Amino acid sequence: MPDRSLGNGRLLITCPDQPGIVAAISDFLHQHGANIIHSAQHTNDPEGGRFFMRIVFSISPYPEKFNQVKEEFLPIADHFDMEWSLEREDRKKSVAIFISKEDHCLTELLWRWRSGELPIHISCVISNHTTLKNVVESYEIPFYHIPIDKNAKPEAENKILRTLEQYPIDFLVLARYMQILSPDFVAHYPAKIINIHHSFLPAFIGANPYRQAFERGVKLIGATAHYVTNDLDEGPIIEQDVLRVNHQYNANDLKITGRNAEKIALARAVTWHAEDRVIVDDNKTIVFL
Amino acid sequence: MPDRSLGNGRLLITCPDQPGIVAAISDFLHQHGANIIHSAQHTNDPEGGRFFMRIVFSISPYPEKFNQVKEEFLPIADHFDMEWSLEREDRKKSVAIFISKEDHCLTELLWRWRSGELPIHISCVISNHTTLKNVVESYEIPFYHIPIDKNAKPEAENKILRTLEQYPIDFLVLARYMQILSPDFVAHYPAKIINIHHSFLPAFIGANPYRQAFERGVKLIGATAHYVTNDLDEGPIIEQDVLRVNHQYNANDLKITGRNAEKIALARAVTWHAEDRVIVDDNKTIVFL
Amino acid sequence: MPDRSLGNGRLLITCPDQPGIVAAISDFLHQHGANIIHSAQHTNDPEGGRFFMRIVFSISPYPEKFNQVKEEFLPIADHFDMEWSLEREDRKKSVAIFISKEDHCLTELLWRWRSGELPIHISCVISNHTTLKNVVESYEIPFYHIPIDKNAKPEAENKILRTLEQYPIDFLVLARYMQILSPDFVAHYPAKIINIHHSFLPAFIGANPYRQAFERGVKLIGATAHYVTNDLDEGPIIEQDVLRVNHQYNANDLKITGRNAEKIALARAVTWHAEDRVIVDDNKTIVFL
Amino acid sequence: MPDRSLGNGRLLITCPDQPGIVAAISDFLHQHGANIIHSAQHTNDPEGGRFFMRIVFSISPYPEKFNQVKEEFLPIADHFDMEWSLEREDRKKSVAIFISKEDHCLTELLWRWRSGELPIHISCVISNHTTLKNVVESYEIPFYHIPIDKNAKPEAENKILRTLEQYPIDFLVLARYMQILSPDFVAHYPAKIINIHHSFLPAFIGANPYRQAFERGVKLIGATAHYVTNDLDEGPIIEQDVLRVNHQYNANDLKITGRNAEKIALARAVTWHAEDRVIVDDNKTIVFL
Repeated sequence: MPDRSLGNGRLLITCPDQPGIVAAISDFLHQHGANIIHSAQHTNDPEGGRFFMRIVFSISPYPEKFNQVKEEFLPIADHFDMEWSLEREDRKKSVAIFISKEDHCLTELLWRWRSGELPIHISCVISNHTTLKNVVESYEIPFYHIPIDKNAKPEAENKILRTLEQYPIDFLVLARYMQILSPDFVAHYPAKIINIHHSFLPAFIGANPYRQAFERGVKLIGATAHYVTNDLDEGPIIEQDVLRVNHQYNANDLKITGRNAEKIALARAVTWHAEDRVIVDDNKTIVFL
Repeated sequence: MPDRSLGNGRLLITCPDQPGIVAAISDFLHQHGANIIHSAQHTNDPEGGRFFMRIVFSISPYPEKFNQVKEEFLPIADHFDMEWSLEREDRKKSVAIFISKEDHCLTELLWRWRSGELPIHISCVISNHTTLKNVVESYEIPFYHIPIDKNAKPEAENKILRTLEQYPIDFLVLARYMQILSPDFVAHYPAKIINIHHSFLPAFIGANPYRQAFERGVKLIGATAHYVTNDLDEGPIIEQDVLRVNHQYNANDLKITGRNAEKIALARAVTWHAEDRVIVDDNKTIVFL
Repeated sequence: MPDRSLGNGRLLITCPDQPGIVAAISDFLHQHGANIIHSAQHTNDPEGGRFFMRIVFSISPYPEKFNQVKEEFLPIADHFDMEWSLEREDRKKSVAIFISKEDHCLTELLWRWRSGELPIHISCVISNHTTLKNVVESYEIPFYHIPIDKNAKPEAENKILRTLEQYPIDFLVLARYMQILSPDFVAHYPAKIINIHHSFLPAFIGANPYRQAFERGVKLIGATAHYVTNDLDEGPIIEQDVLRVNHQYNANDLKITGRNAEKIALARAVTWHAEDRVIVDDNKTIVFL
Repeated sequence: MPDRSLGNGRLLITCPDQPGIVAAISDFLHQHGANIIHSAQHTNDPEGGRFFMRIVFSISPYPEKFNQVKEEFLPIADHFDMEWSLEREDRKKSVAIFISKEDHCLTELLWRWRSGELPIHISCVISNHTTLKNVVESYEIPFYHIPIDKNAKPEAENKILRTLEQYPIDFLVLARYMQILSPDFVAHYPAKIINIHHSFLPAFIGANPYRQAFERGVKLIGATAHYVTNDLDEGPIIEQDVLRVNHQYNANDLKITGRNAEKIALARAVTWHAEDRVIVDDNKTIVFL
């Protein structure tokens, strides 16, 4: 009886652009019996730019053939000097969520996760406060309270790193975590930390964006999900959203409204990262939707 | 035979808040036989803030009774220390439109004006270029070419002022006019000059906002219609709009997309000002929609 | 020592339009020492139409003066043949939420309620399934499992009515309750039952709207919050929202996306009803925002 | 001296899905020296569905190599049973625009065309009225007045067909053309007639959708651009857009607001068709953005 197991793989690639890349990849996949279901490709400059591609393919028998593809893709990847990932669609990425006291982003992620809409595994939640401990634990997710003492921040970050080491973490989500991570810490997770900033960046960089927005009298209030880099609020933007406000909104109303933009922008960014849809291109992102 | 002529008036008011203002106004209107059709009122701080109100009323016989209302409202306005306007709905405001070379905002305004959607009278168009002279004149609108010589800007602005003096101008619209007006000029039209800025303010203040937006890798591109003050790009915001973009958009694509946000945001702001819906509150606006 | 207690009242009115209504109301409020903070008024037809108004006022001492206003408003209300409500802003309306198995709308309402964004008191949750019993009870909200047997629907509805009688219910929210309520039941709560329909009504009336939307190949997927009447999916619309989809979405993806439109449209409608912003005008709504 | 001319081609393909299609196409292009700049591919059902793909490639020398590619692609196309088009990016499609009396969609198309945003050549405008003759001719575009007599519709349509025969028409745009084309006529332009319907289809099919929307009390007003088929208002949807309205809008206000949704939805659909981004999939569309 033939093996009829069928599964999907997701290939994400960036490399210097040159003729023949698509042909090489699609030939390779075809020769391994893979069927391309979706693909999208982009070049940021036809002459001397970079090449970006996402491919979803099905293959059988699975996962044997998938593993073989993964091994044998190396020479092609080397030949074109690719940065690449090849992931099983049935393997959910492991995520650590960082929070402080506010729960709107956390709640949105938990709901989308529990409903099956957000394809991640939540390894643990880390917080510098205990406010949301019970909520997290009611979902049977490990909760770690790691307070940040201003005078002992390296120690706290080390404690976080040691905590994360217990889990096979794929990426981190800062779901309104009100602490700035040090360059040392960020270096452990390059393009793997997603933050939600509570403004339409680059407007209202820094503290109290809703207060700033109120003072400026804006008519739309926004939120920005981005990768964390060492330049505060300057990392590559993954998604932005806005909601309409008017003169009746005080600073607190803007904050309440903005929370709804925040949770939606963050949930989308996390979903897209989890589905291997995002490639960082210097200080920007390519998002294959 | 009784006079059955019926017309509408629009009353726009701001003053220090105190009890009894609505009662005084509505009593006054009722005693003059006016029927309130729409009204909206806002207080920016219930304790010691300012009061803002817009009332649309119908009155008959028209315009006799309207004129009487306008005269006899003075004591109430004085009593409450009001800044106010009382306009006939059937009198279209006279507008001068300022342009340079780009025509998208002009075209949108002209189309909405000709279709009857934009209740204004276009007195004239002023431009520092002749590029759009034929377009403007094909609508039988006077076109004035007043170039701006960097070394003789006061002279040019004087020429503009003398040109405008020929018309009963109510307000000015800078429809992508690529010149900065001097404080002297702006002082002639306080809260009466509407500009369209090609970014989602306060992001990307200054020159080349689309280039800035491209460099930053934003996912939404915006436009902001605001009153002109002496602080460049800092005047009270009337309306903002955004459109979604992605990694496939180069700086020129952002510009093309942004033009569509610009023309819509500007057209809305001009309509609302023309319909007496906007009151300036320090560096913000109250917009009664 | 003077009584300095200060509180707000919300007056919602509809009646046949005629001159003098605003004057009568604002005089009355002024004479009772109330200060109008926000007000909005609308007439659906200046000649012989209906009058709609919402007023928020502050009054002191509170609640003594508020109660006096409420009593003494009756003659005015009678004189103008008003349907009206006058509510204390500090009294949250009591709500019963009806659910079946799906939890997205429930979760959104619970989160907004717990965060203080949604000014309601949740008296109880009623469901024809036990699926979400634990979730509801984890919020310490009474949960009633009242299954609906097709052949004994009147009995089930009676059981629901008797359950609701234990609480001072102001309105009902059908948060994806997959049962059709009988005219008899609906008659107990006229314009007091809010339902979320999972389509952009009047498109895709009836069963399986996401399947219908998929078959039709729409590019936007929507949701509609409306009051329940005896005409299925035909009640007055309070709010609608849409989200963009594309050819990559299968029927299940539309459903997942649509859930996010549903929960936002429903949460807004419930908030607006709870804040006395909605008046039913025949088969439409006036929503004062 | 080598020929350095460089140009782009756009390949649009649909065929029954099977393994190896992407490999065959990309091999072929690579062997002909083409460099793929953008590509996107979709399968509507991984098992036994259809395959859809859009590729933009650059090639040199141009157009010699492009022409060679076009000729030599035939065997591949036959092998996979493809429906396909291969277009030069520098060749603008020729369009005939059909109008009646309303000018908002026409004006939007003309403005986008003149600004270079809309990559089409407008061969002629056909109208059953003379209302907009002068506007069209001011752009130096041929205008044909072909009235439709109810009792002689076949004759009128024949006249239209003979008029169109003078031009190398690629597709037709019904920019608020208030006539229903016969199946005979439509058969001449399969999936090549784009119409704008003034509602969010499938809501408000048929006549007077804004009146219907007003009666129903909707909170969003929409427009739908679709290909014309013989089922009125049932053709494959290309794009939809909505704008927010409220209880203050009467039926005429809905119409005015809706026009802005119409012109934007239509302009997008025309742009996408002109850029070879749309493939019809039975009664739906694949739109590669």
